Amino acid sequence: MTEIKKDSLYPITSRNQLKRAHQRGSYNAQDVYDILDASYLCHVGYVIDDQPYVTPTIHWRVGNKIYWHGSSASRMMKSATMGMPVSLTVTLFDGLVLARSAFKHSANYRSAMVFGTASMITDRDQKVEALNQMIEHLYPGRLSELREHHEQEIKATMVAVMEIEEASAKIRNAPAEDDLEDIEKIDAWTGIVPRHEIWDAAIPDHTQLKDRPSPKYLNKLYSL
Amino acid sequence: MTEIKKDSLYPITSRNQLKRAHQRGSYNAQDVYDILDASYLCHVGYVIDDQPYVTPTIHWRVGNKIYWHGSSASRMMKSATMGMPVSLTVTLFDGLVLARSAFKHSANYRSAMVFGTASMITDRDQKVEALNQMIEHLYPGRLSELREHHEQEIKATMVAVMEIEEASAKIRNAPAEDDLEDIEKIDAWTGIVPRHEIWDAAIPDHTQLKDRPSPKYLNKLYSL
Repeated sequence: MTEIKKDSLYPITSRNQLKRAHQRGSYNAQDVYDILDASYLCHVGYVIDDQPYVTPTIHWRVGNKIYWHGSSASRMMKSATMGMPVSLTVTLFDGLVLARSAFKHSANYRSAMVFGTASMITDRDQKVEALNQMIEHLYPGRLSELREHHEQEIKATMVAVMEIEEASAKIRNAPAEDDLEDIEKIDAWTGIVPRHEIWDAAIPDHTQLKDRPSPKYLNKLYSL
Repeated sequence: MTEIKKDSLYPITSRNQLKRAHQRGSYNAQDVYDILDASYLCHVGYVIDDQPYVTPTIHWRVGNKIYWHGSSASRMMKSATMGMPVSLTVTLFDGLVLARSAFKHSANYRSAMVFGTASMITDRDQKVEALNQMIEHLYPGRLSELREHHEQEIKATMVAVMEIEEASAKIRNAPAEDDLEDIEKIDAWTGIVPRHEIWDAAIPDHTQLKDRPSPKYLNKLYSL
């Protein structure tokens, strides 16, 4: 498996110490991919005129390439045409950790930060192929139900692609790490509060032509 | 209410059109604050040597100032000492929207992007006050249960503070927006899949001195 590297800059002290097997950093590509694939939401970081921006969007991955899309009118997407250095981060916030001292409180999470240079897909057919991949990524099998794309829709949408050049994954999945003397002396509630994300039952639109069950391709959401 | 402005750069077409009341952008400070306060997780964007970085962390807000913390050893925190331009984004991903054409698929979400210049709190007592505010923000009333901070812990932690100079909020909370002719002709499942975040029941640590109920200050999590 490829190693993809970047000095990591995660800000919360104890997460960076890699003290334990369940609290670790990784440059292994598969660890990075697993986190990227576990969420549809990412945050894209980019710079325009020395000003950083962080924009939430939906991403999808094909091999070592990561994709996102946007309006042709978006400054972010226009800048990407120029070959913009990008940092893209996916975070799964898995819980809070309460310890007996304020500074030993922490969070459990999985996060991947990837780096590269974004560019636009200018070829019309390649753009359509990438957008179709997004629909199939979100809703496997749905594409055949939809009407054909209008050329104007294709023109109004841009797709950014970025080869992942460097990356790191960080995972904390651990209990509180109190000092032994605090465990013996301090009578504070200690433990974790797990957190996860839920997809609720699908709600059909009022324009739906007929009653129908929720489609099978939504099962992917429920298995995330 | 203050207006705080920045050209917004959100990439997904339909979100930027502000076609409807339930799909809108805002520069109203209270709209921004409401989104910032609805999540503990943010993504901080910053630039080191022309390279953007996006780091997940926990933030808290006091008035028009936003705070986060990290290790004194972190490059991000060291850079902030120099007066680093920062973009900090909070996103609540509220659901997916399935339409009859691929390009009309969308997401429901609330997002706030704030801009300013980060600096470090260098005064020891002000730093402690800010960190105590963080604990009280996360777990109102818990601080009195904890042991006192060690001076070494205070030294090893840095707190960044940023006055919010400009900001924007974006909200999409709407059904699919199919063309009328598609509604009549295309027999695809259409609707939304809502998404939300769940805090599970707290799990006491195995070192807990005695059985005790989950503390009341955790109720704040469950009401988010």
